[in-house]
Amino acid sequence: MNTINKHNWKSKIHEIIYEADTPSGKLFDVLLLVFILLSIVLVMLESVASVDEKYHQILYIGEWVVTILFSIEYILRIISVKKPLKYMFSFFGVIDFLSTIPMYLAFIFAGSQALVTLRALRLLRVFRILKLARYLGASNQLKDSIIASRVKIFVFLFAVIVSSIIFGTIMYLVEGEANGFDNIPKSVYWCIVTLTTVGFGDIAPQTALGQFITTFIMILGYGIIAVPTGIVSAEYAKSSRKADLEKEALLHSSNNHNAQNDNNNTAVDLNSQHCPNCGVSNHKDDSNFCYKCGYKLHL
Amino acid sequence: MNTINKHNWKSKIHEIIYEADTPSGKLFDVLLLVFILLSIVLVMLESVASVDEKYHQILYIGEWVVTILFSIEYILRIISVKKPLKYMFSFFGVIDFLSTIPMYLAFIFAGSQALVTLRALRLLRVFRILKLARYLGASNQLKDSIIASRVKIFVFLFAVIVSSIIFGTIMYLVEGEANGFDNIPKSVYWCIVTLTTVGFGDIAPQTALGQFITTFIMILGYGIIAVPTGIVSAEYAKSSRKADLEKEALLHSSNNHNAQNDNNNTAVDLNSQHCPNCGVSNHKDDSNFCYKCGYKLHL
Amino acid sequence: MNTINKHNWKSKIHEIIYEADTPSGKLFDVLLLVFILLSIVLVMLESVASVDEKYHQILYIGEWVVTILFSIEYILRIISVKKPLKYMFSFFGVIDFLSTIPMYLAFIFAGSQALVTLRALRLLRVFRILKLARYLGASNQLKDSIIASRVKIFVFLFAVIVSSIIFGTIMYLVEGEANGFDNIPKSVYWCIVTLTTVGFGDIAPQTALGQFITTFIMILGYGIIAVPTGIVSAEYAKSSRKADLEKEALLHSSNNHNAQNDNNNTAVDLNSQHCPNCGVSNHKDDSNFCYKCGYKLHL
Amino acid sequence: MNTINKHNWKSKIHEIIYEADTPSGKLFDVLLLVFILLSIVLVMLESVASVDEKYHQILYIGEWVVTILFSIEYILRIISVKKPLKYMFSFFGVIDFLSTIPMYLAFIFAGSQALVTLRALRLLRVFRILKLARYLGASNQLKDSIIASRVKIFVFLFAVIVSSIIFGTIMYLVEGEANGFDNIPKSVYWCIVTLTTVGFGDIAPQTALGQFITTFIMILGYGIIAVPTGIVSAEYAKSSRKADLEKEALLHSSNNHNAQNDNNNTAVDLNSQHCPNCGVSNHKDDSNFCYKCGYKLHL
Repeated sequence: MNTINKHNWKSKIHEIIYEADTPSGKLFDVLLLVFILLSIVLVMLESVASVDEKYHQILYIGEWVVTILFSIEYILRIISVKKPLKYMFSFFGVIDFLSTIPMYLAFIFAGSQALVTLRALRLLRVFRILKLARYLGASNQLKDSIIASRVKIFVFLFAVIVSSIIFGTIMYLVEGEANGFDNIPKSVYWCIVTLTTVGFGDIAPQTALGQFITTFIMILGYGIIAVPTGIVSAEYAKSSRKADLEKEALLHSSNNHNAQNDNNNTAVDLNSQHCPNCGVSNHKDDSNFCYKCGYKLHL
Repeated sequence: MNTINKHNWKSKIHEIIYEADTPSGKLFDVLLLVFILLSIVLVMLESVASVDEKYHQILYIGEWVVTILFSIEYILRIISVKKPLKYMFSFFGVIDFLSTIPMYLAFIFAGSQALVTLRALRLLRVFRILKLARYLGASNQLKDSIIASRVKIFVFLFAVIVSSIIFGTIMYLVEGEANGFDNIPKSVYWCIVTLTTVGFGDIAPQTALGQFITTFIMILGYGIIAVPTGIVSAEYAKSSRKADLEKEALLHSSNNHNAQNDNNNTAVDLNSQHCPNCGVSNHKDDSNFCYKCGYKLHL
Repeated sequence: MNTINKHNWKSKIHEIIYEADTPSGKLFDVLLLVFILLSIVLVMLESVASVDEKYHQILYIGEWVVTILFSIEYILRIISVKKPLKYMFSFFGVIDFLSTIPMYLAFIFAGSQALVTLRALRLLRVFRILKLARYLGASNQLKDSIIASRVKIFVFLFAVIVSSIIFGTIMYLVEGEANGFDNIPKSVYWCIVTLTTVGFGDIAPQTALGQFITTFIMILGYGIIAVPTGIVSAEYAKSSRKADLEKEALLHSSNNHNAQNDNNNTAVDLNSQHCPNCGVSNHKDDSNFCYKCGYKLHL
Repeated sequence: MNTINKHNWKSKIHEIIYEADTPSGKLFDVLLLVFILLSIVLVMLESVASVDEKYHQILYIGEWVVTILFSIEYILRIISVKKPLKYMFSFFGVIDFLSTIPMYLAFIFAGSQALVTLRALRLLRVFRILKLARYLGASNQLKDSIIASRVKIFVFLFAVIVSSIIFGTIMYLVEGEANGFDNIPKSVYWCIVTLTTVGFGDIAPQTALGQFITTFIMILGYGIIAVPTGIVSAEYAKSSRKADLEKEALLHSSNNHNAQNDNNNTAVDLNSQHCPNCGVSNHKDDSNFCYKCGYKLHL
């Protein structure tokens, strides 16, 4: 009885922490997002000298509150998962650990300044919440169109970088150190600043020839921005049209059981459950057992 | 007789002020737009020290003219509408009041400087005129495509902000206070300046590593601008295609009375009448009575 | 005989100068483009102090050569056209006159500095050559898609300007004169600089609140650039699809005489002839007589 | 026997160096890319004064290693090709020679500074590797859509440049030398900086009128960026749709031998073999003999 109870207790925690399909799981995710954002705000405010001077005590307490809550969450994550070691050495496991530890280290050792790097890692925890984005039903189509145009965008970026190196070297030879183009890497950096139409203006061509070449670089940059936009635009339109056709096909076959099954397979997304045994996620929404280890899932 | 007369007088004013379908209503809206823009120009010019010195008297008189005209309009709005309180506490009612009051306050109290804030609120009155845009027949399709891509744009902006926070923190650690990256919020601000390709240049990376990371941020920004453009582009094309199909369908069924009725319902837009009784707007163009309170509308 | 000869001589000149369909007409247009560009280069170089000092004599002679050639062209244009007054007071007639006169004025009066304005008007003559662009077969579709999205782009620009005025006023109140936001017009100017992602950086927010609001402005600007792009993109795709369908339809009906007639009407563009009598252009390619005054055209 | 052996040895080298279809050819191309990038990094680092001071010896050795390897490659290219002179005076032959020679020249003559220009030419060798891009199967469609919109983009760029000259001249007249608009060419340069939304800020309008005109320039630039994007977007969508239709057509006719032959002709790309005899490339994948000189190709 006790073991079953304990098991139930553990599996309940697992459900809350690792899944986002149940009300309590959703609530947990939203709360976690709030605390992550709060912890990021704390790191930010602490870096502002004037704020830190005034509210140092409050920030310090807030930091400890966040640290303790993150510690509890970390311990619960380890307890509730079947294979704790696998979690601990997973990407998010390491991030969770590193974003919890800084305050303890600062307590033991002096010089917390260097630990700001570690605390900034908390930002990466935000990506854990991105599974929430799935419920917005939007990111998938977006992701698909970006993935579909991945190779083309890579080829495009390669062309941008090669152009930048060539024009950067030319500008270094034309303008020289006297006008701020100290060396080729800096010239290439300036060239990318110009090509992407950012244009800081900390370095700017001074010679007539340099300004003439810059004109070419700018118009090139202004023109080629059309390329990735055109690609994503077309790919997105394609995937969007496909999604519409699928929806339509479903509407026309709603009294056909087989078609409806297809419906479940193609239209309904994978859910956010993590297997309590092996930690694998992305199960199909109607799965009863983990597709990897066969362990019974919460329905 | 007198009441009917009075009622007619009131309803005439209502028609002029609140509707944009009659010639007099249109004229009123255009005149109002001119006066709103004039009042904005006055606020602007008064803020220019050199102009204010020279033409202070003229600006002061102009300001009073605008204030008095706005006051008359405000009073007429209250008189001609059936439920004055509902209007007075509506969004535009409050804006109308606040954009009229500053000069009276400045007359009673000294120190009109602080009142510039109130007078700037007049700008919001411009949106009242946006109902004119409906006659351009353009804003609806535009609005539809933006609304259709709302969620996707939100997801995109979330990604932009998370990236900015991460890169901002990294730049703070790399460049430090010595190079203008005083604290993390400022670093994040700089990162958004760079990612959106604005590039003021008041803060710019000085270290080689910082410039290298900046290169990534800029290319990222240059690349991801393709995403919202692609989305709006595809959504707009979709809604545009739908509109075309609807138009075509109407053309093919012009000798069918029922279809023609559909025509009126889908193609003819809602008009700009406000019910003189309850103030509800967006009535169908062939409505005889308010769809909410049944009050007779002007045809 | 003499009158006929004279007429032939005149009509020959008319053909060369006003039309671009004959080899000699094309040659004239290309030569004219070269001389216009040369005259622009002269105006440009003269404004560069170091070049003007060195090569003043050459520039002066070049300027006189251009002026005399333009004078001859202007006289020939008046002689060869049937209604000289109509030409002289047309847009291009005035431009032609104004771009020829400066050197004569400088010869009579001293102080040619003020005449640079007049000489710069020569640039507008370039648009005369744009009729050449028709032969590239590209500008029409482009023009169509811009015209089709004209109203929508106007609504969009109105929204951009209203947003800039609102945000500009807010930034003036937040940052104030101390940080370079001297007055509301300058603030609005800065706001447009930021919203369009130009970002000169001569004015930049200094307060934390100002930088926070700037973040919103930039992301707004980064986002709404998607709107005109999406519009033009969709309109262009539509007009491009329509053009393709028309081409296809023509290919499928090549043995049908009526359809082929349609072919001539829709696919063959209007030509660049100007009527030697009334000066009207844009005649259909197979016109024998001016569609306006019935005067015989050169075939 | 010996000649055959020698021929085999030569043709083996030819296969490795000039082709990218065999494993050894691919390996060679990847190694070459690495060495080209390494040589570029060396040129870059040498231009950084602080790095050059510290690691001058290492950079010098690295430079010699790269030079010797490039020399060997150059000699092998000459030996293994049938018509060495044709290669030596081809574009890439000259680039290969010029990017190898600088160190030898620096060894003979003093003053290697001027030779940095020659060494920078190595960058152009990167384009040799672009044949690798073909294997990404992406660049073709991209190239097609850019070529299809070539004329339109040219018309667009012409319009941008004419606008820039006009606005640049106006700004020169409005702002004058006192505010940094020294001469018309510089004004035009500034105008392109603004129109392309780069906005360095080294020159910025100071007068109210100048800032007002700048507002127009910026909004114009912000608006017309939509044009090339719309064009490429639509053309890309068109070519992408065409490619999809072709793929589909092939799928529907897979049991038809003739159709399958079409398949080979349209879908399978040309391969990267260079004829060992005449050096012509772009042979069809199933070619046994060079389509130009009939020389037997390696299969």
